Amino acid sequence: MTLPPLSAPPLDPTPIFEYFRGHYGSELLTAAVAHFRVFEHLAKGARSFDTLRGDLGLAERPAIVLLTALRAMGLLAADASGRLELTALSREFLVGPPFDISGYIGLNAESPSVLNMVERLRSNRPAGSKPDEGGVAFIYREGVASAMEKEAEARRLTLALAGRARNVAPVLAERLPLTEAKMLLDVGGGTGLFSIGFLRKNSQLHAIVWDRPEVLKVAAEMAATHGVADRLECRPGDMFADAVPAADVVLLSNVLHDWDVPQCQELIGRCTAVLPSGGRLLIHDVFLNDALDGPLPVALYSAALFCQTEGRAYSAGEYGAWLTAAGLTPHPIIPTLIHCGVLPAEK
Amino acid sequence: MTLPPLSAPPLDPTPIFEYFRGHYGSELLTAAVAHFRVFEHLAKGARSFDTLRGDLGLAERPAIVLLTALRAMGLLAADASGRLELTALSREFLVGPPFDISGYIGLNAESPSVLNMVERLRSNRPAGSKPDEGGVAFIYREGVASAMEKEAEARRLTLALAGRARNVAPVLAERLPLTEAKMLLDVGGGTGLFSIGFLRKNSQLHAIVWDRPEVLKVAAEMAATHGVADRLECRPGDMFADAVPAADVVLLSNVLHDWDVPQCQELIGRCTAVLPSGGRLLIHDVFLNDALDGPLPVALYSAALFCQTEGRAYSAGEYGAWLTAAGLTPHPIIPTLIHCGVLPAEK
Repeated sequence: MTLPPLSAPPLDPTPIFEYFRGHYGSELLTAAVAHFRVFEHLAKGARSFDTLRGDLGLAERPAIVLLTALRAMGLLAADASGRLELTALSREFLVGPPFDISGYIGLNAESPSVLNMVERLRSNRPAGSKPDEGGVAFIYREGVASAMEKEAEARRLTLALAGRARNVAPVLAERLPLTEAKMLLDVGGGTGLFSIGFLRKNSQLHAIVWDRPEVLKVAAEMAATHGVADRLECRPGDMFADAVPAADVVLLSNVLHDWDVPQCQELIGRCTAVLPSGGRLLIHDVFLNDALDGPLPVALYSAALFCQTEGRAYSAGEYGAWLTAAGLTPHPIIPTLIHCGVLPAEK
Repeated sequence: MTLPPLSAPPLDPTPIFEYFRGHYGSELLTAAVAHFRVFEHLAKGARSFDTLRGDLGLAERPAIVLLTALRAMGLLAADASGRLELTALSREFLVGPPFDISGYIGLNAESPSVLNMVERLRSNRPAGSKPDEGGVAFIYREGVASAMEKEAEARRLTLALAGRARNVAPVLAERLPLTEAKMLLDVGGGTGLFSIGFLRKNSQLHAIVWDRPEVLKVAAEMAATHGVADRLECRPGDMFADAVPAADVVLLSNVLHDWDVPQCQELIGRCTAVLPSGGRLLIHDVFLNDALDGPLPVALYSAALFCQTEGRAYSAGEYGAWLTAAGLTPHPIIPTLIHCGVLPAEK
């Protein structure tokens, strides 16, 4: 049997993802100028994050998403004491004559996509999260209407999202050796492509993809196609409720960014508990700068996550604090592809 | 009387405009991948522009807007004979396994802003151009419901658009000397800020701002504020129908990009006719590359113009051909600010 190749793409698809997500920059900028009047609030002087988010009427998560993007655009900065202030750029062009372009930006204030972003920021709820919106979320937890519980939808979304995993998974397997590991637990592993990448690279390894039953149908097909079905178990479960399967390496790839801080801490704690001493927890995700001031492409991806899930992008500093609190030792991030990297932590 | 300063901004606001317009990149990319299937159409080989636009069911103007943006993104290229073909980037990531991310891009296919862009491209009509849409266009010609004919709307739009002119006009006046000119005709001059910039810089100069009556109310106020009311005449008129006022310099600043090719040629011809020998026509605008393959920020601004007017961005080559046909000699473009430049042509 000839197996399909599972190797890194020769070219880098990152620019395509950046063009794809450019609209979040437009929406956040226009929302900040024409709806939340962020720059006017700061025209009289610097304010702490908490004071400013109070002024804007925003919860913590949307405030971080909005203000991180504006900092990444060079329109806000932190002063020596950490308070947020205007930059020379925003002071010159966004708070009054003679060079003010707020009115020009405001020409797009009432576009449906800007109004949707404003509603998301104000409500701090992902699209489709209310029963009367008729939508369904990409994520699953008890009580959330989830696309991942319906076979056709789960397949469509899982396969669409897999386009990214198919590019990144071989790079992760290349850059993070698992030559000594026995059992990999792939939490919320979807298609299982990240597990498959590791299994193809490490012949001694076994893996469990732990996800919702409808999603696992896709993972089982992928495992068969890639010739690793004998070493890959598809285990249905609820990662917030069920006992965590035992493993010496636990992978959280593009999972924590779907969840708010308490859920992230809970998942890290639950996964850490099953690890043996010397076992590893791998956070594969995008990472904001520790100062929460960029990079801009990650800040815009954070806006996408904010709009579609209960999470956002986090910084290595935020993850590091949660890992340390759980009893793990974080190691330096190894970059992979499409803005991602892996943060390994050891028990 | 102390006049307000009219000088170039110390900083460059261009990045803010680029963030503001990023959504056009998202919309065009998603429309190309998920609705028009541009890359699939080219998967079997290169096609001429006309064949491809026939395959896509697009008129010439939307085809240029869409394909120019895709070329600027590095997703399409022209072969030696000028036919359009896939690039290595689009071949690897947008036309099938193993690295295809079309499904990921398609996750946004049904967003209102993407569907609006698809409708604009298919219909080749600006937003608000149909009576039943209840909207009004930014532009004026006989038969078009125009915001520029209603006082409150004309004032709001004119002042919003003026934010850009306020930054660019002093730069244009700095870089293009009019020391020998007597009368400047500012066609569709809006706030008159470009005329005012030239008048402040050249004390011998007089100017006529030629625009719709409601728009001219703003221009008259601006002229008074800037101390040039005695040398600036606000002349109401219809630039497509009325006799063109006599002048030795005619300025078309951000005007031709609102109109389709026949109207551009007509306006250039009408303006050229009133110029004396040695007189100049100045096209101040953005410019696409002559190959219509970028730059990307201009390609995205072209999409904005396409959606809101009957025009798009043109190349120096396109303008040059029309100027030459009208009996003028085009000179090299002098860059100004925010992607703009001035193309001077002499009679």
